[in-house]
Amino acid sequence: MDIAAANRECLERMQKAMPLLVDLQLASEVVPGMHDHLVLHSGPPLSWDRMCGPLRGAIIGACLFERWAATPEEATALAARGGLQFEPCHHHRAVGPMAGIITRSMQVFVVRNERFGNEAYATINMGLGKVLRMGAYDNSVIERLHWMNGEFAEILRDAIQRSGGLDVKNVLAQALQMGDEAHNRYKAATSLFVRTLAPKIAMSKFGDVERALAFAGASDSFFLNIGMASCKATLDAASGIPGATLVTALARNGTEFGIRVSGLGERWFTSPAPKIEGVYFPGYGPDDANPDIGDSAITETAGLGAFAMAAAPAIVQLVGGSIELAREITERMYEITAGEHEAFRIPALGFRGTPVGIDVRKVVRTGIEPVIDTGIAHREAGIGQIGAGLTSAPLDCFVQAVKALAEWKAAERSTGSARPL
Amino acid sequence: MDIAAANRECLERMQKAMPLLVDLQLASEVVPGMHDHLVLHSGPPLSWDRMCGPLRGAIIGACLFERWAATPEEATALAARGGLQFEPCHHHRAVGPMAGIITRSMQVFVVRNERFGNEAYATINMGLGKVLRMGAYDNSVIERLHWMNGEFAEILRDAIQRSGGLDVKNVLAQALQMGDEAHNRYKAATSLFVRTLAPKIAMSKFGDVERALAFAGASDSFFLNIGMASCKATLDAASGIPGATLVTALARNGTEFGIRVSGLGERWFTSPAPKIEGVYFPGYGPDDANPDIGDSAITETAGLGAFAMAAAPAIVQLVGGSIELAREITERMYEITAGEHEAFRIPALGFRGTPVGIDVRKVVRTGIEPVIDTGIAHREAGIGQIGAGLTSAPLDCFVQAVKALAEWKAAERSTGSARPL
Repeated sequence: MDIAAANRECLERMQKAMPLLVDLQLASEVVPGMHDHLVLHSGPPLSWDRMCGPLRGAIIGACLFERWAATPEEATALAARGGLQFEPCHHHRAVGPMAGIITRSMQVFVVRNERFGNEAYATINMGLGKVLRMGAYDNSVIERLHWMNGEFAEILRDAIQRSGGLDVKNVLAQALQMGDEAHNRYKAATSLFVRTLAPKIAMSKFGDVERALAFAGASDSFFLNIGMASCKATLDAASGIPGATLVTALARNGTEFGIRVSGLGERWFTSPAPKIEGVYFPGYGPDDANPDIGDSAITETAGLGAFAMAAAPAIVQLVGGSIELAREITERMYEITAGEHEAFRIPALGFRGTPVGIDVRKVVRTGIEPVIDTGIAHREAGIGQIGAGLTSAPLDCFVQAVKALAEWKAAERSTGSARPL
Repeated sequence: MDIAAANRECLERMQKAMPLLVDLQLASEVVPGMHDHLVLHSGPPLSWDRMCGPLRGAIIGACLFERWAATPEEATALAARGGLQFEPCHHHRAVGPMAGIITRSMQVFVVRNERFGNEAYATINMGLGKVLRMGAYDNSVIERLHWMNGEFAEILRDAIQRSGGLDVKNVLAQALQMGDEAHNRYKAATSLFVRTLAPKIAMSKFGDVERALAFAGASDSFFLNIGMASCKATLDAASGIPGATLVTALARNGTEFGIRVSGLGERWFTSPAPKIEGVYFPGYGPDDANPDIGDSAITETAGLGAFAMAAAPAIVQLVGGSIELAREITERMYEITAGEHEAFRIPALGFRGTPVGIDVRKVVRTGIEPVIDTGIAHREAGIGQIGAGLTSAPLDCFVQAVKALAEWKAAERSTGSARPL
């Protein structure tokens, strides 16, 4: 298969995905390979000694939640002496925002790509303020983790199961008509989600439904994790197509930025995680900021987030720009993508589909880096979010990927057939 | 007070309104002057013999609901022999979409303008399909009216009361950032409403909360009536300012279009109701359409609806236009208004405030008629909605109003003081 045909197939799979939210289950029950003392994190693989503050903070929180340690000091010592195993979420069909931590006792949304049969997973979003994903781990965080993954999950699971499956792609498509870009802004999607599931949640016999509905509606970010799992389920089905030069993951662990390319399978191409240009909460500034972190750039990879920025003029206020900037970002992304999304459309651009299918060759040829809009975590463990802003995927990752594709192509020519990478 | 000062005061009152949804009560308990066999309808005053099909249909439905008649024929005979009293909603601090019928046993939302102390009322929106406001009155309509105004109202009242009051202006302002123009499109506002009240509704002990939440979220138009009552509460507080030339009501009864002007108090200036340019449901066309009907143009009067069209590009698809048309309509309305709304802002126009405060003098001087986007009812009783489209307030109403203002001004000069009109 030549590159053009491979990319057509790859883009077609991205377009035709049918991600449905079908369940909420214990990670130990559904996430492949999940076991005791395994910690999944965002971005490409990374050892404890190279991990940034917020990632370490979130791991400390997970140890306290799992009762693998009784204090932050014990958790740190456990990690330092090799008592935990670390692997990327992406290696387990999962994604997580910011630190992205998933351990066995956490509940994960199950999003099934009905068209291609594959599943993807993400934890329940904790909301704003002191949250695990930003590296906070104080008592309030641990208590919320227990309630969220206990009573709240029982109620929500029951509602999701009785709903017969929620069409996530449809919710995202509607949300783009309602001012969300589906990465930093999930106000419409969260509202539509609560509106849809509220009747089922209200009838639950599993706990405090008033608290459950208030929690699901308390933060606009509630739908973020579901959206991310939907993008992961979409892109996994477009992975592993020999010769395809389209990106299937953009992911950061706070130390490194990594990309994956369809034709190159599960291989990572990494570069140091970039800084974020953004707006800070009062009392914080660029010196406090951790470099870019999280699997949430899976949304940009799927044609959402900064790629759909023109749909969400309100978001540019949050990250410090003008509405012209929002439109300019989306328009620039058409130059590095293979197509326009059939379902995700932008009213302000005359309902043009969002740019989708980042082609590593176009990125290298134009020098245009994929833009990402994202939250900013404090660089130290235990503090949390300090702002929001814009960054971009480092060109170097794409240069490496193009080189690897060229090597693969050369090998294919010499052997007369594709070889596994 | 000169006209400029009067208009500044009038606009200031529109800007500073603080409409809160505080209650849901029986019309007979809260609507001033409500009594047995009184039927409130949309638009300016009108006798039975001049009423259009959908208005008659809705009145028939109200008679069946109130058990003033056992059959449509009995209801028609009752109306024809003078057994019912007809008055505009607007004469009773109320508004209603389309036919706008309010009778004593209907529940009405109570919206209190906290800044000025006045209240306004609107019934519960029935959703889409066969609904009273469109002139339908079959058994399904009457049954739904009984449930809505019975069990559902008990649940919703309890939730509203326990919420401590919902800031309607804030919901509308958010909705304009989410693709609503707050007349024909209330998808975001309805979603935000359900999201906000769901925890309270879920805890109700007054009935089937699953059905209640499903009903509130079933139709995007649920928030329409609350939005209209909010606009009425806003504009009533801006009425009756001597010399003010700003419009305080645009309202249609399906036969006549009427306007009210602040400085001219409760007087109506009327003209035949215009046709609507629009898109029809399959099987229907312009010949089936009733002329413009409903109090819902109170939204345009308050700087929403077609005046905020640039915020809702998706709505122009519904009514058959392009996104350029949406922007063009809003921009044209700045030419006939006194100011820009401080709270209602349009992302696509760089967060510019919507045009607000229709000045009858500017309408007459420019010849630009206020644009209204609206639903289309079938011209016969009993059928219902057949489409949606755009129309405009007839210039003639504004010409009459300017003439009346000139007469008032002349009288003021000759007597040296303002006189009541």
